[in-house]
Amino acid sequence: MSATIKDIARLANVSHTTVSRALNDSPLINKETKERIKEIARRLNYSPNVSAKSLVLDRSYNIGLFFSTLRAGTSSTFFYETVKGINRVISHPYNLVVKGIDDYADLKLITRKSFDGVILMSQSADDREFIETMLEKEIPLIVLNRRVEPANVVNILADDELGAFNIVDYIVRLGHRNIALIEGKRGFQSSLRRKAGYERALKLHGIAVREEYCVPGSYDVESGYRGMKRLLKLADRPTAVFCSNDDMAVGALKACSEVGLKVPEHISIAGFDDNHFSAYLTPALTTVKRPIEQISRFGAERLFDAIGQGRMQPETIYVETELVIRESVQAPGGGRGE
Amino acid sequence: MSATIKDIARLANVSHTTVSRALNDSPLINKETKERIKEIARRLNYSPNVSAKSLVLDRSYNIGLFFSTLRAGTSSTFFYETVKGINRVISHPYNLVVKGIDDYADLKLITRKSFDGVILMSQSADDREFIETMLEKEIPLIVLNRRVEPANVVNILADDELGAFNIVDYIVRLGHRNIALIEGKRGFQSSLRRKAGYERALKLHGIAVREEYCVPGSYDVESGYRGMKRLLKLADRPTAVFCSNDDMAVGALKACSEVGLKVPEHISIAGFDDNHFSAYLTPALTTVKRPIEQISRFGAERLFDAIGQGRMQPETIYVETELVIRESVQAPGGGRGE
Repeated sequence: MSATIKDIARLANVSHTTVSRALNDSPLINKETKERIKEIARRLNYSPNVSAKSLVLDRSYNIGLFFSTLRAGTSSTFFYETVKGINRVISHPYNLVVKGIDDYADLKLITRKSFDGVILMSQSADDREFIETMLEKEIPLIVLNRRVEPANVVNILADDELGAFNIVDYIVRLGHRNIALIEGKRGFQSSLRRKAGYERALKLHGIAVREEYCVPGSYDVESGYRGMKRLLKLADRPTAVFCSNDDMAVGALKACSEVGLKVPEHISIAGFDDNHFSAYLTPALTTVKRPIEQISRFGAERLFDAIGQGRMQPETIYVETELVIRESVQAPGGGRGE
Repeated sequence: MSATIKDIARLANVSHTTVSRALNDSPLINKETKERIKEIARRLNYSPNVSAKSLVLDRSYNIGLFFSTLRAGTSSTFFYETVKGINRVISHPYNLVVKGIDDYADLKLITRKSFDGVILMSQSADDREFIETMLEKEIPLIVLNRRVEPANVVNILADDELGAFNIVDYIVRLGHRNIALIEGKRGFQSSLRRKAGYERALKLHGIAVREEYCVPGSYDVESGYRGMKRLLKLADRPTAVFCSNDDMAVGALKACSEVGLKVPEHISIAGFDDNHFSAYLTPALTTVKRPIEQISRFGAERLFDAIGQGRMQPETIYVETELVIRESVQAPGGGRGE
């Protein structure tokens, strides 16, 4: 029989929670304690595992799907694709329970008895406490969408940085130099990753990142509209705008149309996500396809593997995005090819 | 103590299931048996109820939210608004379990132990078997969105027929006579109700319903695009098109733009639902706001009332829709007033 967290706690003379936190590199535990505990774990040949016995006894047949929140900041397409993807994998007697982390006043209310496994559609670094709680309670966990540091879970995500890099690189190669960015929701890792891809593409081509070209957004349609209004007031107006998602691109298109600017003839607009309606906008939106349904399905499969095998091997898996070239971006003088 | 289905079954010398079906007017039970059973129920002063005792013993703390399917035919906005609305009402220790009816090979797998209560977002008459199964098993049930006949459940829905009537009436009053319809998904009651509202408005104004003006759709963007293409080929092209939802209106706008037709100058387009992006389309979409989040929240409140009181009084509640006038509809010659 392999060692458990309880064995380590006994040997280290600390609590179960402290061991769990130390093994998960929690900032709440000091460095010396962490090293001492990790050394004991190594000695005992410990690996995080899900006890087959307790699973049989405690099975709730509930699989938890958690979002940071169900109240705001999640696009409906994103939400639906996630549920659809996971639901493909789940069958009776398992149930998919949908939750926002902020539905809980106290995360301690979540127990091994509540969920056989949890899938977190992670949007913000604030989810760290939730992740640590799941790990402490040894609830099998898959984290989707956001890169978790330290990488001590199964982590499946789209390569947003590379996706953003690819589309901005494409825009530059068409001849644009004045390329603006409408940013995603503040605090969401996806916003930072997409901005990083934007900046990397500009730098690769020797274009300076201009502060006035990076305007805030919050992933909803209206914030794209407001962001674009702000960009249109600049003396040195951009010739192309990369919106951090398609919903904001819809708002940006609206702002252009209101002042009689034609897209892409007068200004190019690109999005990110490839929503269900993006091909049908006028002009059809050039964007980055993020395979949300695939990531979600894949995550659910990994979770059931882990529940079945009674163990979970931390791993980070990137799923590729795809550049979708349609009509809303063209060369500054007109034309779409190089 | 009040009479139960079991008491009636004993007196009628039939099975528990037969009693339940008879009281729910199932077509599977013949008329004589139904009347005999209903007479016994009246004599015993029976009313459908949820035993407080068994609830305490069997509580799963799971509330089931069922859609006809999670695979297709549900728009992401509709799905997200529903979950958001219900999730506002649910708090720990209750969990919201999201399911498609077609996730079950056999509905008998669903038991009182699986769910403390069920909310059905009903889209099609095919849901009848599911509704009967819940009633037979005495699982507290709220049916949203679709009118249930016979009305033996708590039934909360938007008045789609009146909503469609109002927008088509508005279009006629602007001066249009050639008004087409892109229909919703075949078999969905909402499709039939919206078509009924369209027809009633035309008839009120003495306009004949023309078969070639009613083209099929399936609520997705692409079917709106295809439906509009078909209408644009007609010799006597309509001057206005009522799309049975906003997603299809996006497709219809695209089809017009591809052939250089301006909306609303050359042709008017209206939708239904008021999706999150509809105000930001160009032109902004004139549509009918369907208060899905409100219906869903209201349904969840009623379900918890019923669980708490241990009884459920059948009732049909209509929630009003709202005509949202924006830019995509105007008088045939131009202008938007009467």
